[in-house]
Amino acid sequence: MKKVLLINTSSEPAARLLQERAGIQLSVITTPSYRRFYAEDTDVVVVDSVEDLTKVCLAALEIRKRNPFDYVVSPSELSLQAGGYIRSYFGLPGTGYEIANAFSNKHVMKQRLAAAGLPVARFQPLSQFTDASEAARTLGWPVVVKPAIGGGAEDVFVLRDAEQVQELATAEVTAQLRESPYPMLGEEFIDIEAEFHCDAVIVGGEVHFVAVSRYFSPVLKSVGALVGSYTLPDGHPDATAVAELHAAAVKALGLTDGVTHLEVLKCSQGNLIGEVACRPGGGGIAEQLLHQYGVDIWMEFLATSLDDPVTSVQLEPRDHLIQYMLPRPPGTITHISTAEELLAVPGVVHADVRAATGDTATGVVHSATFAGLVLAKAATEEQVHERIAELGAHYKIDVRTEEG
Amino acid sequence: MKKVLLINTSSEPAARLLQERAGIQLSVITTPSYRRFYAEDTDVVVVDSVEDLTKVCLAALEIRKRNPFDYVVSPSELSLQAGGYIRSYFGLPGTGYEIANAFSNKHVMKQRLAAAGLPVARFQPLSQFTDASEAARTLGWPVVVKPAIGGGAEDVFVLRDAEQVQELATAEVTAQLRESPYPMLGEEFIDIEAEFHCDAVIVGGEVHFVAVSRYFSPVLKSVGALVGSYTLPDGHPDATAVAELHAAAVKALGLTDGVTHLEVLKCSQGNLIGEVACRPGGGGIAEQLLHQYGVDIWMEFLATSLDDPVTSVQLEPRDHLIQYMLPRPPGTITHISTAEELLAVPGVVHADVRAATGDTATGVVHSATFAGLVLAKAATEEQVHERIAELGAHYKIDVRTEEG
Repeated sequence: MKKVLLINTSSEPAARLLQERAGIQLSVITTPSYRRFYAEDTDVVVVDSVEDLTKVCLAALEIRKRNPFDYVVSPSELSLQAGGYIRSYFGLPGTGYEIANAFSNKHVMKQRLAAAGLPVARFQPLSQFTDASEAARTLGWPVVVKPAIGGGAEDVFVLRDAEQVQELATAEVTAQLRESPYPMLGEEFIDIEAEFHCDAVIVGGEVHFVAVSRYFSPVLKSVGALVGSYTLPDGHPDATAVAELHAAAVKALGLTDGVTHLEVLKCSQGNLIGEVACRPGGGGIAEQLLHQYGVDIWMEFLATSLDDPVTSVQLEPRDHLIQYMLPRPPGTITHISTAEELLAVPGVVHADVRAATGDTATGVVHSATFAGLVLAKAATEEQVHERIAELGAHYKIDVRTEEG
Repeated sequence: MKKVLLINTSSEPAARLLQERAGIQLSVITTPSYRRFYAEDTDVVVVDSVEDLTKVCLAALEIRKRNPFDYVVSPSELSLQAGGYIRSYFGLPGTGYEIANAFSNKHVMKQRLAAAGLPVARFQPLSQFTDASEAARTLGWPVVVKPAIGGGAEDVFVLRDAEQVQELATAEVTAQLRESPYPMLGEEFIDIEAEFHCDAVIVGGEVHFVAVSRYFSPVLKSVGALVGSYTLPDGHPDATAVAELHAAAVKALGLTDGVTHLEVLKCSQGNLIGEVACRPGGGGIAEQLLHQYGVDIWMEFLATSLDDPVTSVQLEPRDHLIQYMLPRPPGTITHISTAEELLAVPGVVHADVRAATGDTATGVVHSATFAGLVLAKAATEEQVHERIAELGAHYKIDVRTEEG
C-alpha cells in the first residue's frame, strides 16, 4: 500500500489514474474548480489556491493525522511549487523545493540555465510592471513581461515602447499580473522561426526516454489558433540538437527522477531553451507519445513520483506522428465533425471529438480549450504539412455566438 | 549601497547592526512583538508570523515595489525557513530553501546527517501526538516528542509510557505543540553526560573559523537554571572530536557560506549531533567568541549574508573563557549584584547586568531569560569549576513573588 498525497489543480489524468490504481491510499489537496475530478469517498481537502504554501501546509498537517502519506504527487504546473515544498518540509522522497522551484519559476530556471552556459533569451527580474522600461534599456524593445510562475500565455505582454508600458501600468488588462503573488520577469523578445518540444523520462539522473517534436509553425498557430506538433524521428538534426539541450538543462537544474517537458525556440541566434517543466506536457502530447513510442508518460510520471520502476516499451519509429488539436471557436456549437469522419482522413490513426452540438464554451477561450484531438501518421516532413492541410479541409465546426 | 531585506523575529544584534551600518538600504519583515527593534523611519512590514511563508512572500512583493532588495538576512531561528524560501523564490544569492530547511527542520536535518553516516539520536516523524507510543516500539521509553521546527526547549516532552501519552494527548500543556504548523518528531531519549557547542564561520564551503565550548554540566543546569559554557582550547580532545563532527555536518547539509551553531551530546553511545543552525548561537555565545577569539560572530554572519569579505582576526588562546548567564528567577527584583561587584570576582573580565531592582519578569520565564552575562577567564578546566562556584557564591539576586 503506497500512501500518497496528490496536490493538483488541472491534471485530470493524474486524478483519474491515482483513484483507479490498486494499492494506493490517496489523499488530495485541490482547488474548488477541480473538486469534480474526485469521487465522493476520496479524501479531498479543498484550498482556495495551491500556490498558498501556508494553506497547503496546514491542509497537509491535517491530512497526515488521518492518512499519513509517504509520497507527494504534483502533476499540474501550478502544483509544482507546493509539491516541492511539502516534500522538503516533511522530509519525503522525490523532487524537493529547490529543484521544483528551478522547474517552475522561470526567473530561477533561466538563472540556472544561463549559469550553466545554456542558451536562453536575455532576462531581467522586475520589481514592478513599470520596471519594464528600465529593463528594455538592456533587453531592447519590444520587451516581454510575464509572471515568473504559472503556465500558459496568460498574463504575458509584449510591450513595444515606454509609452505602452505607462499606458498598461494601470490598465485592467494587466491587473491580474500586477496583483499576482509572483515575481515578474522581463525578457528579450524573440522572433521565433520554429518551436520544438522535448518530452522525457528521467531515472537516476539519466535520460531514460526522450522524444522531440516540432510545433506547427508560429504562422499557422496565429491563424485560427491551429495548435499541434509532430514527432521527429531519432537522428533528425533538430531532434539531436534539442535532445542535447534537454539533457544539459536537466543536469543544470538537478532533476534526478521525473518527467520533463521542455520547449526550445529556434531563432536567428540559434536554439534557445524557452521553458522546462517537471511534469508531462499538455494538449495531445501524452497521446502522441503513447501512439508513437508506446510510452505512457502519465504512468511514467506516477512511477517516478512513487518510486516505482518505469515500465515503458520504447519503439523507435522512423516516421512522424502528428498531434492536431481540434480548434474550438467560442460560442454554441451547431455542427462538428464526428470521429468517424476524421478517421477517414488520410493518415489519421486516432480521433477523439470531445465537444458536441449544443455545447457552449463558457468563460474565456484560451489556448488550452479544444474540441478534441486527432493523431495522424506521416512518412516525411513534407507529408506532415499535407496531412495538416487535409485535416484543416475536412474538420468542420460551426458555432453560433451571442452576437450572431 | 547594498539593498537588504531583513526577515527577523528575536535577533536584536542583526536589527541594530543593519540599522547602524552605512551603505545599507534596509527593509524589514518582522512580527508585532519585535517592531520595537526598529526606528520609526526604518522600512518595516509587520506580519503575524514569519513562519507564514505566504504572508512573508506577499510582504516581500510589496516591499520590492518601493525598495527592491538583493540580499535577504534571516538571523533568528524562526526566520530561517522564510529567509531560505524568499531567497529561492526571488532567485537571490545566499542560502536557499533546501539548505535553510536542512538547518532548521530537525527531521530533515537528522535524515541528512544520518544518511551521511553521522551519529544522531534515533528519530521518527510523528503524524500526531499519539503516534509517540507507536514510535516508542522502535525508539524505546522514555520517548522525546518535539516540534521539528523552532528553537529552545519549548514544547519538548519526555514521555515515560503509553499511559502518559494518552493523558497528554488532550492536555492543555501539549495544545500548542499539537496545533502548531510544524511536523512533530519523536526521538530516542539520550542520557547526556556532557554537552558541547560549536560555533563557526563557513566561507566557500570551508570552515574558516571554529570554536568548541563545553556547556556547564547537565546536573548544574537542572539545579537553579545555571546556564553557561566555557571554551575549549584548540587541541583539546573534545574540541577536536566536536569540530570534526561539525565539519562533516556542514558538508552533509550543504552550507557554503554562513555562520553555524552546532550542539553535540556526549553519552554512553559516544558523541551525537544534537542540532545545527545556520545563525549565531544565543545566550552569551557572541560575547564569548568576541572576547576569547576576537571574532565578532554577528559581523561575520552579516558578511556571509551580504557577500562581504569576512574580517575576523582569530586569536589562538590556550585558556578557557566562561560565559555565565546570570540566573533570573521570576518575580520582582528587590536586590541584584552590580557589575562592579561581579568584576571583582576572580577571573571575571566582563560583567553586564541587564536587570535592575524593581524589574518584574512578565510572562513565562524560559531558558532565554537572564539577568545578564558574566565572562570569566580560567587557566585550566579545574579552575573553570572553581570560577563557576565563586560566581555562584558572589552573585546575589532577590525577588519578591506575587505569593511571597
